[in-house]
Amino acid sequence: MTTTIDGSRIARRIRQQVAEEVAAAALSGTVPGLATILVGDDPASAVYVAAKRRAIKEAGMRDFHRHLPHHATHDDVAEVIDALAADPEVSGILLQLPLPRHLDGMALINRIPVTKDVDGLTTASAGRLARGERGLRPCTPSGVLELLDAENIPLRGANVAVVGWGELVGKPLTQLLLSRGATVSVAHEHTTDLAAVTRAADIVVVATGVRGLVGPEHVRPGVVVIDVGIHRTPSGLAGDVRSAELDGIADRITPVPGGVGPMTIAMLLVNTLRAARWGAEREAVAA
Amino acid sequence: MTTTIDGSRIARRIRQQVAEEVAAAALSGTVPGLATILVGDDPASAVYVAAKRRAIKEAGMRDFHRHLPHHATHDDVAEVIDALAADPEVSGILLQLPLPRHLDGMALINRIPVTKDVDGLTTASAGRLARGERGLRPCTPSGVLELLDAENIPLRGANVAVVGWGELVGKPLTQLLLSRGATVSVAHEHTTDLAAVTRAADIVVVATGVRGLVGPEHVRPGVVVIDVGIHRTPSGLAGDVRSAELDGIADRITPVPGGVGPMTIAMLLVNTLRAARWGAEREAVAA
Repeated sequence: MTTTIDGSRIARRIRQQVAEEVAAAALSGTVPGLATILVGDDPASAVYVAAKRRAIKEAGMRDFHRHLPHHATHDDVAEVIDALAADPEVSGILLQLPLPRHLDGMALINRIPVTKDVDGLTTASAGRLARGERGLRPCTPSGVLELLDAENIPLRGANVAVVGWGELVGKPLTQLLLSRGATVSVAHEHTTDLAAVTRAADIVVVATGVRGLVGPEHVRPGVVVIDVGIHRTPSGLAGDVRSAELDGIADRITPVPGGVGPMTIAMLLVNTLRAARWGAEREAVAA
Repeated sequence: MTTTIDGSRIARRIRQQVAEEVAAAALSGTVPGLATILVGDDPASAVYVAAKRRAIKEAGMRDFHRHLPHHATHDDVAEVIDALAADPEVSGILLQLPLPRHLDGMALINRIPVTKDVDGLTTASAGRLARGERGLRPCTPSGVLELLDAENIPLRGANVAVVGWGELVGKPLTQLLLSRGATVSVAHEHTTDLAAVTRAADIVVVATGVRGLVGPEHVRPGVVVIDVGIHRTPSGLAGDVRSAELDGIADRITPVPGGVGPMTIAMLLVNTLRAARWGAEREAVAA
């Protein structure tokens, strides 16, 4: 029988834990705060930012939001980031992607100080992840690891296939899994025999952006499948995995929605709390 | 029949190319220079540094060497690095590892500016590699790719097993291979079935520091084997691969010595030349 991994429940528990730690920190006078920056009026981005702000407030953290017009220049956005970087009340900074095309996203993201990089997307954070140094890790791959931990699925020595080699999930997830002792195989658009890679795995994580890419022909019985994909379809949301076809084959599988999605926001809260603590430590050292 | 990949010949060709480019650059008045820093009197380190300095001079580049006593403090070494970092004559800086135990190697390496980081070992360079940004890549994994390229072995879509997940080779090599479109599986000390990983591969790269770890039981016929290991034995140098046992099974294999080893120094010369050009570009922009 295939069990559905309840990401919503696990995410709720993490958010509750964060809220308790925030409440405890508030007693000593420090309240973590997240600054979200939205440039332009992309409807999907507006929905994502609103959800993040809501979660931040629900966890008892401070919500600093900046909304810039679509035609904002590089210098306009840079100025906002620099001001938030210098503001001790702001624990974390999140620049919502994608940005309007005339802006250089990577140059702007890299203005975020490593201690406030709650999305873990700066080059500095990527270097810290690569070298195993202290730093904030990207939210979605962190959420995948939290899901596996919550399900008591051991990673050390496990054979994991990561399908998709993107900046947001595949790349950092591969490093996180390896640092936990998993044997990792990475497949992507140039892979010639995807099934050969995924059928050798105990755990398959799919983050390709290709709807329904992975099905029963790709996995062996008893596999754990984590579906990071999310696609809007006429019949609702769907993932990169044909989940229904894996029923009775997979041991456990994440649903879409309600699997990895809720974990991403939960890990953003965790990262904001970590950023607040890191910032406080650095201030204590500097004082 | 198994062919031996002649790393010495390929490295010689690359060094010759670098020397020609250095000679051409010298005509316009700029000579790249490498600063090597040796702390203490470890005999093996002294040999390595001497070999690097000799290669630098043979390529027509300037040799800046700093030798500090074993008891040098963090501040002593930091001061030397900072002076070299500020010196426009110095294109690249190499801090020879390992350092005496009382020194924090990572903190010192991270003082090297990313544009002069010819070993590619700073956190900043690791971040640039992870994000696919311009930067200097670690010499040994770059040398492995050069060997494969020189042998006209296609990487896009190839199944590559990387055995060993170390900072110097396995980690950066995995990212370099993936960025070239290879399907990569990474095995290491926690891997439960090494042969299952390596037998699925067209190319096996071994960088574990475990002498003779990989043998015929680990590979399929026709495989290409790259042996990064180097061990001193009573009967001479040996690698991580039992090469003699792979004769007639592997299609191509690197010898030890004369395989990957010479490539590491060749790529140091390439990186020093690249660093000199990068530095010149930045000065031109600043001027």
